[in-house]
Amino acid sequence: MNIEMIRAAADRIAGHARRTPLLNAPFLDKIAGRRVWIKPECLQHTGSFKFRGAYAALSALEPTVRARGVIAFSSGNHAQGVAHAAALHSTSSVIVMPSDAPALKIANTKALGAEVVLYDRAGESREEIGDRLSAERGLTLIRPYDEPEVIAGQGTTGLEIAEDANALGIREADVIVCCGGGGLTSGIGLALEADAPGLRARPAEPEGFNDVARSLQSGRIERNARTSGNICDAIITPQPGDLTFPILSRLCGPGLIVSEDEALRAMAHAFLRLKVVAEPGGAVALAAALFRTDEIVGDDVIVTISGGNVDPAMFARALDSL
Amino acid sequence: MNIEMIRAAADRIAGHARRTPLLNAPFLDKIAGRRVWIKPECLQHTGSFKFRGAYAALSALEPTVRARGVIAFSSGNHAQGVAHAAALHSTSSVIVMPSDAPALKIANTKALGAEVVLYDRAGESREEIGDRLSAERGLTLIRPYDEPEVIAGQGTTGLEIAEDANALGIREADVIVCCGGGGLTSGIGLALEADAPGLRARPAEPEGFNDVARSLQSGRIERNARTSGNICDAIITPQPGDLTFPILSRLCGPGLIVSEDEALRAMAHAFLRLKVVAEPGGAVALAAALFRTDEIVGDDVIVTISGGNVDPAMFARALDSL
Repeated sequence: MNIEMIRAAADRIAGHARRTPLLNAPFLDKIAGRRVWIKPECLQHTGSFKFRGAYAALSALEPTVRARGVIAFSSGNHAQGVAHAAALHSTSSVIVMPSDAPALKIANTKALGAEVVLYDRAGESREEIGDRLSAERGLTLIRPYDEPEVIAGQGTTGLEIAEDANALGIREADVIVCCGGGGLTSGIGLALEADAPGLRARPAEPEGFNDVARSLQSGRIERNARTSGNICDAIITPQPGDLTFPILSRLCGPGLIVSEDEALRAMAHAFLRLKVVAEPGGAVALAAALFRTDEIVGDDVIVTISGGNVDPAMFARALDSL
Repeated sequence: MNIEMIRAAADRIAGHARRTPLLNAPFLDKIAGRRVWIKPECLQHTGSFKFRGAYAALSALEPTVRARGVIAFSSGNHAQGVAHAAALHSTSSVIVMPSDAPALKIANTKALGAEVVLYDRAGESREEIGDRLSAERGLTLIRPYDEPEVIAGQGTTGLEIAEDANALGIREADVIVCCGGGGLTSGIGLALEADAPGLRARPAEPEGFNDVARSLQSGRIERNARTSGNICDAIITPQPGDLTFPILSRLCGPGLIVSEDEALRAMAHAFLRLKVVAEPGGAVALAAALFRTDEIVGDDVIVTISGGNVDPAMFARALDSL
């Protein structure tokens, strides 16, 4: 895993992934007590940064391998990213989703061109289903974060942040990243190391699911006690990845932790001041910038909004938090 | 009023106004039956395209004139655009607003650095107040649309649309523009005439407030019977401008008309599929593309989302429309 892989991924996704801007708003600066710059990956295709990694991974496959199709386990943003990236490569995708996944997510994934295979969380193993389908059809598994080409794709976000920060004259700043398994955070960390060494990637996580912050503190991989029961579910994973953790450990941190209420309020501020839609997990970095100001140093802070796939009822709850 | 003024405005606003992208989403293409490209000016500074015209007008003033300050009549997007543009030019702005304007709009305009002067709609004339303040302090009036440099600033939106459409290989398409007094529509019309002559600007308006569509049809300026009582209030004006109408008449049309319900549904689709926040008046062009498909020709359609300054209650109503 190195910067050359990220640059190669950037070349492959150019013209396919959206080149998102850095947004800002004086009202947010006032709350944060410093300038806040927002990288709105909710505006990315399929509504999250996951499309970058999926497209990077698909485009790196040998064409005859890619032609046999790909498979992913996900009920969320990674599923949509893989489905859309596969369709753009004119190949097929199988997405293995739990049968109790929200109907809208299943419908969206199908509409993006994927074959959705449902499994019963209680009685079936998604890995067994995946292994069987992969063996039968020669499908390639696209992992959500512990996969070099996926990390390289997410890292292109960091190249763009570095380019824009340099253009703005920002030499030193924390770059707060919504963090699950660490694919986006580690990719951004590598990109910043190469192109904007005064910028430091820091993971943001929801309270009670701060496996990455704890792992960075202890120096070894720590697990979450549970992986559900928080509105930021899109960024909750059991533990940092085997590939991502060494990068996180070398380049990123310390972590920032926010509450569900703070994530909701950050969503409302993104609505009011930036006119973009953030999902709860996608708002934790902005929440940290707005409400954890004494844990951040410097005149500028950069945050990712990692996704915007939120249902109307949850969004209405966020608007009520103001 | 000519293309050179628009190019000069583009040079002046470069690095100050945001260069917004063209967004798209396969789900919207499916509804519309053609490719839909969205110019999200809700992502512009102050949440609407109005910042472009305000900044262009302020930056065109002779420095000693600009230093005395500017004045505008507006309770909405133009007010915020002028206030922010004045602050960026380190000069003062006076915004004359009705005393019954929403508290949030008054607060926002003040927070952007303006002096807000309230007047009583029933008993006072805002023009008299404006004339008195202008005479006393030497303020320059920035009109919302019937002002060459404002039209030039709004026209920069059209230069960007032309550039992106050319890069995408779109040679012929309707460009549907949310239309009030016609500043944005006429500016875009002029820019397209020069840089993308196969593209045609067409105004979109709310039902019952279709003064521009009727004016284009009759060939002379027609008035709205009333100027309130519609959720698309941000784009409702008494009639097309004296400067904008000849341009609209020569280059733009025919108009498209949408209902309030269609505007709300378009806001919900922008939320779900684009992850951007549109205000009702800012969603009429997208509504036309989605729900007036038989009045549009071609494989591609381009629409503006002109603004995103909507209060949470109205946005919740839009989400309920799905």
